[in-house]
Amino acid sequence: MAINIIVNGAHGRMGQETVAAIKADPELHLVGALNHGDSLSDNIKALKPDVVIDFTVPDSVFQNSKTIIECSARPVIGTTGLTLAQIEELQHMCQSKKLGGIIAPNFSLGAVLMMRMAQLAAPYFPNAEIIEYHHPAKKDAPSGTSIKTAQLMGYPDLPIHSVRLPGYVASQTVIFGGDEETLTIHHNSTHRKAFMPGVRMACKKVMTLDGLVYGLEKLI
Amino acid sequence: MAINIIVNGAHGRMGQETVAAIKADPELHLVGALNHGDSLSDNIKALKPDVVIDFTVPDSVFQNSKTIIECSARPVIGTTGLTLAQIEELQHMCQSKKLGGIIAPNFSLGAVLMMRMAQLAAPYFPNAEIIEYHHPAKKDAPSGTSIKTAQLMGYPDLPIHSVRLPGYVASQTVIFGGDEETLTIHHNSTHRKAFMPGVRMACKKVMTLDGLVYGLEKLI
Amino acid sequence: MAINIIVNGAHGRMGQETVAAIKADPELHLVGALNHGDSLSDNIKALKPDVVIDFTVPDSVFQNSKTIIECSARPVIGTTGLTLAQIEELQHMCQSKKLGGIIAPNFSLGAVLMMRMAQLAAPYFPNAEIIEYHHPAKKDAPSGTSIKTAQLMGYPDLPIHSVRLPGYVASQTVIFGGDEETLTIHHNSTHRKAFMPGVRMACKKVMTLDGLVYGLEKLI
Amino acid sequence: MAINIIVNGAHGRMGQETVAAIKADPELHLVGALNHGDSLSDNIKALKPDVVIDFTVPDSVFQNSKTIIECSARPVIGTTGLTLAQIEELQHMCQSKKLGGIIAPNFSLGAVLMMRMAQLAAPYFPNAEIIEYHHPAKKDAPSGTSIKTAQLMGYPDLPIHSVRLPGYVASQTVIFGGDEETLTIHHNSTHRKAFMPGVRMACKKVMTLDGLVYGLEKLI
Repeated sequence: MAINIIVNGAHGRMGQETVAAIKADPELHLVGALNHGDSLSDNIKALKPDVVIDFTVPDSVFQNSKTIIECSARPVIGTTGLTLAQIEELQHMCQSKKLGGIIAPNFSLGAVLMMRMAQLAAPYFPNAEIIEYHHPAKKDAPSGTSIKTAQLMGYPDLPIHSVRLPGYVASQTVIFGGDEETLTIHHNSTHRKAFMPGVRMACKKVMTLDGLVYGLEKLI
Repeated sequence: MAINIIVNGAHGRMGQETVAAIKADPELHLVGALNHGDSLSDNIKALKPDVVIDFTVPDSVFQNSKTIIECSARPVIGTTGLTLAQIEELQHMCQSKKLGGIIAPNFSLGAVLMMRMAQLAAPYFPNAEIIEYHHPAKKDAPSGTSIKTAQLMGYPDLPIHSVRLPGYVASQTVIFGGDEETLTIHHNSTHRKAFMPGVRMACKKVMTLDGLVYGLEKLI
Repeated sequence: MAINIIVNGAHGRMGQETVAAIKADPELHLVGALNHGDSLSDNIKALKPDVVIDFTVPDSVFQNSKTIIECSARPVIGTTGLTLAQIEELQHMCQSKKLGGIIAPNFSLGAVLMMRMAQLAAPYFPNAEIIEYHHPAKKDAPSGTSIKTAQLMGYPDLPIHSVRLPGYVASQTVIFGGDEETLTIHHNSTHRKAFMPGVRMACKKVMTLDGLVYGLEKLI
Repeated sequence: MAINIIVNGAHGRMGQETVAAIKADPELHLVGALNHGDSLSDNIKALKPDVVIDFTVPDSVFQNSKTIIECSARPVIGTTGLTLAQIEELQHMCQSKKLGGIIAPNFSLGAVLMMRMAQLAAPYFPNAEIIEYHHPAKKDAPSGTSIKTAQLMGYPDLPIHSVRLPGYVASQTVIFGGDEETLTIHHNSTHRKAFMPGVRMACKKVMTLDGLVYGLEKLI
């Protein structure tokens, strides 16, 4: 039996990809595609989805998440902008309803696996460096993914180098150097389609959870 | 208090590196360095090591391992050539004495971590390929490490490609390809010194085991 | 003074990119965008372009090229399918009119530079291998670019390995192995936009030629 | 007929490799191996070499080079430390005697080819970056090779990033980024043996020169 899903923010770039990805997956069933102006709570009450995916905007994501939980649907939140305090509040709400939920700033399985791999190797290699490669239009440096990777690795003062060149979309290399050996993890993504396997996995895994999980890497 | 160690096969290339590595580690203490012609059992009885490391030859490794266990020392076996049946017999011997032991065909932490990483990613990426790079003098292709990696990944018919070119010592790349993303793990080693951190780790971890473990990746 | 250009095959995927690229370049001026059904000779006579770019189909490319030259415009041909005999005939036609022309099966400057680099290094490194990476939908293996690279390198029996995995668009690595060193050239392209700098360069360089050149690498 | 060669500085690390490399090459013939204390001019007069290779120390390289030229042997100088003014003076000396000579701060053919390749691609890719990887014991950053590469490429303000990690000997990557494509050149060397093909080539090419050449890349 397929999992019933509402996509909130269905007209956005991530929303459009998500709608297409759900339609293409026989285990998932799209029951609603909402946009700015549609009432989230009314639609959840009417369509009774198992899961609501939110790809909207930072300003509305906290209120959307609360609405989803209050209506007893499982939130799968890809919108960024939630504070740690807000995440904790949402976790309490899910816990008291024994409701599964997932908040993931990065749905790329490849990126999440890279982080887990880096975390795995870190205790065995005291020397490492991250190099991340993005197009010159990217506003922040170092990238959010590289900062999160470094945090997970737990090194004080891990060097992160940012390459900004045309021809790259989003790439990251984590290099570990040891006696006479190097171990390198490299992730390259070229399009937001790369996030869809992670979104689909989240919709399936959220059905088996009884609380709100923050970070796709927790499910791997 | 340092761990007391005998190195068996101390004149060989791996043995010499091991002797140097143990001397350089304050947590390890070399009590004996044996070679062809020395009695292993007499020396264990006289020197009472906590651990005996064996880097000898395929023909003698099974008898050496039995002797080490019978004398109640913990075996750390780097010599290749043990059959699965022999490994099982040694495991039974260790189990009945509640004695720790480690058999590891590959002591490179980098290589072992690469295998674990490949195993971690395999369920999420149905498409992958291994390319391994070695010097042209290498006799076997594909390499033992690439075959073992493929087994751990559990893919039927995973392509393995072997590059044989001067300029390489031992390198391996595992590539996972997904929708609009690739995830690549690369290990490069240039000298047998690369095995020493793994040998030293094994000497320390074997003290906490109460059975015989096959494969360094089990300890990571 | 800008160079006046007709694009023949303007509705195709390459044609559309070409039209956009010409419009964005102040040194180039689009005077016509022709499609299936438009008369090439009538338009050349009416619009008097300096250059006609052809991105049509293998069946019509030879006739188109002859028409362009007969009408005294300079051909820049990206369509594949010309035989060596046909290319020679077109070269004779250009020569007798002292007219510049370019036929290029690959307009990627990066790919063409990779080939030139490989050709440069080949005499100094007797051992090499090419690995090319493409999406699984690619029908031919090895790729045309890898075969052409190998020809330029002039090695008998150069190994070419083809990786077919999702996540790749078009990549190629040329590895040279020597004593204790490796030299590697890697080209990665992610979209047909990558061909546009080469198309624009060809339109400019063709104005300075007095004969027909086959292969963009001749102009680098 | 083999080329007769004296190695000056034969006991040093580069000198020892050079002596071995010359002995292994049937086109080259070692007639003398000199060390600190031996008279260079007396030996050249007595042994009449075609070529004198100098791998000594910065303090003596200028005087050695002058002596070699005065004695009408061809200098192949690998010792660093010559100033541009000194190189010019040596060039005048060679010119007036119509004597071939080579001064090369880097005899790695791979590194020299990497520089030539980077120079070749630079006019076509306005955006680039160099990343060089060395062991943490290396004192200077960025490396001399990366600085020389950047000079040859002729970019103002080309970013050079230095990675210092165990496990690397000497590696460098030059990345060119364009619209939807990247072109990367990577050189990796693991031992000073990597310089020997360049030393042997210099001994042969110097016989055909009638002046002093600075930089092995000029001969490629």
